[in-house]
Amino acid sequence: MAVKVYGAAMSTATVRVLLCLEEMGAEYELVPIDFSTGEHKSPPHVARNPFGQVPAFEDGDLMLFESRAISRYVLRKYKSSGPDLLREGSLEESAMVDVWLEVEAQQYDKAISAIYIETVIKPVFFGGVPDEKVVAESAAKLGKVLDVYEARLSKSKYLAGDFLSFADLSHIPYTHHIVAGPQASLFESRPHVKAWWESLASRPAYKKVTTGTPTS
Amino acid sequence: MAVKVYGAAMSTATVRVLLCLEEMGAEYELVPIDFSTGEHKSPPHVARNPFGQVPAFEDGDLMLFESRAISRYVLRKYKSSGPDLLREGSLEESAMVDVWLEVEAQQYDKAISAIYIETVIKPVFFGGVPDEKVVAESAAKLGKVLDVYEARLSKSKYLAGDFLSFADLSHIPYTHHIVAGPQASLFESRPHVKAWWESLASRPAYKKVTTGTPTS
Ligand SMILES: N[C@@H](CCC(=O)N[C@@H](CS)C(=O)NCC(=O)O)C(=O)O
Ligand SMILES: N[C@@H](CCC(=O)N[C@@H](CS)C(=O)NCC(=O)O)C(=O)O
Repeated sequence: MAVKVYGAAMSTATVRVLLCLEEMGAEYELVPIDFSTGEHKSPPHVARNPFGQVPAFEDGDLMLFESRAISRYVLRKYKSSGPDLLREGSLEESAMVDVWLEVEAQQYDKAISAIYIETVIKPVFFGGVPDEKVVAESAAKLGKVLDVYEARLSKSKYLAGDFLSFADLSHIPYTHHIVAGPQASLFESRPHVKAWWESLASRPAYKKVTTGTPTS
Repeated sequence: MAVKVYGAAMSTATVRVLLCLEEMGAEYELVPIDFSTGEHKSPPHVARNPFGQVPAFEDGDLMLFESRAISRYVLRKYKSSGPDLLREGSLEESAMVDVWLEVEAQQYDKAISAIYIETVIKPVFFGGVPDEKVVAESAAKLGKVLDVYEARLSKSKYLAGDFLSFADLSHIPYTHHIVAGPQASLFESRPHVKAWWESLASRPAYKKVTTGTPTS
């Protein structure tokens, strides 16, 4: 039986999980959750994710939530059928994957999510206009984070080392939107960051998930 | 050679790492970083942690940062000498540890850190007064998160299941301060949360780290 992801295509956290499933060539079913009717706060969904958010994940009797936790599970469960994205066989390599995954979750996400909300969610879903002050402050914050990335990526091809890992993939969901918007120059102006992004964006899993035609 | 933690006793993120080292009975040296002189933003420290934060961690040639990543490394490296706090031998149990660790990092930390800043850092370190509006809003947010915990802990003794894990320990650094302050009732009023906290606070590692006399 295929595993199930309860989520929404516009949800960056859902996309994180789908990318991992595609990288591992896993069979899955995406069960859409309709935000416009408040389905994410309905009792059946809150039973899946007590915070009333997407994604939630079902594998038989096992129910999981939180995109980075689900992703780790997927990468472990299917580890023999795709790339080794957690490197758990090496104490040092897995530690570097964890470091840069935490940087993504703790530093990158905080800066870029505000830009995503202002420049994508507000105009596209609510017909609003971005708060330019919030955008400018967040862009400055993201710029500082990307300076650290530029220095790091001048020494290794990927964030955790000279190997692709989940730490890289975990950046895709937000970056995908921002490189196509008014803040793209944050990425274009940093050559190592730019090359890193291009190598992520060339992956078949990325193309499948972001063109909205995931295999299932 | 003992591993080194560069940090500060008042730093919640540093305490997270020290707790793990104590649980595993590891030898370590705590190298103090002096915030009052801006040492955390000095070139030698930025070479350890490019975000100019504590903690940073050194094990021979390996340099790590981000407290949750360092903690995972410590729990793996010393796994034969202490409790099994990651449960990586089981796909399902490690997934539940990851879920509740993400809840701590993504939901709990966001609500409780603002209360910590207002009611501890501001008055104790800067002689200021808490912004009561921020405290009230964050307390309401934390209350909602703790409602989820109360329901969860009525079904299992610890967050990830009937076993202590890093997901529980990771809550200690902030909770330690808040249960001793004006918002303690958030914990006192929820019986399962209260019992859970008492079981964490009774651990020898907790006592050693929070009374400021870590073994080294
Ligand atoms: N930390 C969570 C974040 C989940 C999240 O914020 N999901 C959004 C969509 S991307 C959502 O469901 N928002 C609705 C809400 O928070 O009420 C994860 O990584 O899964
Ligand atoms: N996500 C980081 C947070 C580290 C952090 O915020 N450390 C604080 C002390 S608890 C710090 O160094 N603050 C100084 C600064 O951010 O400039 C971790 O878990 O290690």
